Amino acid sequence: MDADKKERLQKQLDFILELDKVKSIYRQTYLADGSRKENDSEHSFHLAVMCFLLSDYAAEAVDVAHTMEMLLLHDVVEIDAGDTYAYDVEANRTKAVREEEAAKRIYGLLPGEQGRRYYELWREFEERRTPEAKFANALDRVQPVLLTDRAGGRSWREHGVRRSQIMKRAEYIKDSTPLLYEHVVALIAKNVEKGNLLDA
Amino acid sequence: MDADKKERLQKQLDFILELDKVKSIYRQTYLADGSRKENDSEHSFHLAVMCFLLSDYAAEAVDVAHTMEMLLLHDVVEIDAGDTYAYDVEANRTKAVREEEAAKRIYGLLPGEQGRRYYELWREFEERRTPEAKFANALDRVQPVLLTDRAGGRSWREHGVRRSQIMKRAEYIKDSTPLLYEHVVALIAKNVEKGNLLDA
Repeated sequence: MDADKKERLQKQLDFILELDKVKSIYRQTYLADGSRKENDSEHSFHLAVMCFLLSDYAAEAVDVAHTMEMLLLHDVVEIDAGDTYAYDVEANRTKAVREEEAAKRIYGLLPGEQGRRYYELWREFEERRTPEAKFANALDRVQPVLLTDRAGGRSWREHGVRRSQIMKRAEYIKDSTPLLYEHVVALIAKNVEKGNLLDA
Repeated sequence: MDADKKERLQKQLDFILELDKVKSIYRQTYLADGSRKENDSEHSFHLAVMCFLLSDYAAEAVDVAHTMEMLLLHDVVEIDAGDTYAYDVEANRTKAVREEEAAKRIYGLLPGEQGRRYYELWREFEERRTPEAKFANALDRVQPVLLTDRAGGRSWREHGVRRSQIMKRAEYIKDSTPLLYEHVVALIAKNVEKGNLLDA
């Protein structure tokens, strides 16, 4: 194989091996069986499957492949920036800067045009303006609710999460996927009743 | 929401929560840093990313979205059938029957038409006839070689894997992705030299 091709492939493989690190970045969400917390690669896997199974529920038609790519890579910035729990106010203040630096380094491992493309895809996810970014962000908010409900509300209880906090995050789902929103609201009500979410 | 829609969504969510179990099915391959074995959801995540980053290397043009869906779900049969190590001759004798039964149960959780579609997609992967199935199977053979090489050959040494065994599995990659084949052959040679693979 010629030198240019070889260099291109090596950069791609370096990125692919760098990605292995997201398997060791743990989130606050427990697996459905409550046995342990899930990591970023497992979360991304789950979101990508939800994307193609549930794409009919997006309010605006989405390019499924584009959304899957976005979801599979949306958390790689956490290799450098770490996972920021959605309900940790302090950590969320510095999140944007930490993640921007991480994105530059990590997507910079890829060959030029591919690196730029996936950096832009990450920006698109963060900016939440396109139908794909809206649907991807909605799924990213639905999945932990499904898991945490099934795991008996454990991470909500551990962090003292309030109904108002989770409803604020869930509000976003309303316009992008009304049917999933309805389901999530029912799960929230059930968990307030069970005492897994604070009624405040 | 009307009853039919609600039932359809509930079936999809049941399947999605069932999928959580692949996060607890461990493979023989170690993570690149050697810290622990990887599980099926992490493996599938990795393959789906490799699929869109490396699709140019497929010998025949592939539908990337179709291949990603195939890769994300190809191992769900292991929820019932367990992981069968590629070099375990005995377990591989009963693999097909165990996996067929698993596929029927698990894809059967989905709404009718979706269940049939993803069962067929799994069959397509197993039959390795379409360009997408060939590329997906090639990636499924490349990824553990990348990880095991990076992890210092640990799983190969633990199982006493021979060069001839791994070359036989790698041969398959040759036609579907020549450039990746070349890379894998170089990694195999390096690991024979290091004593991580038996020279036989």
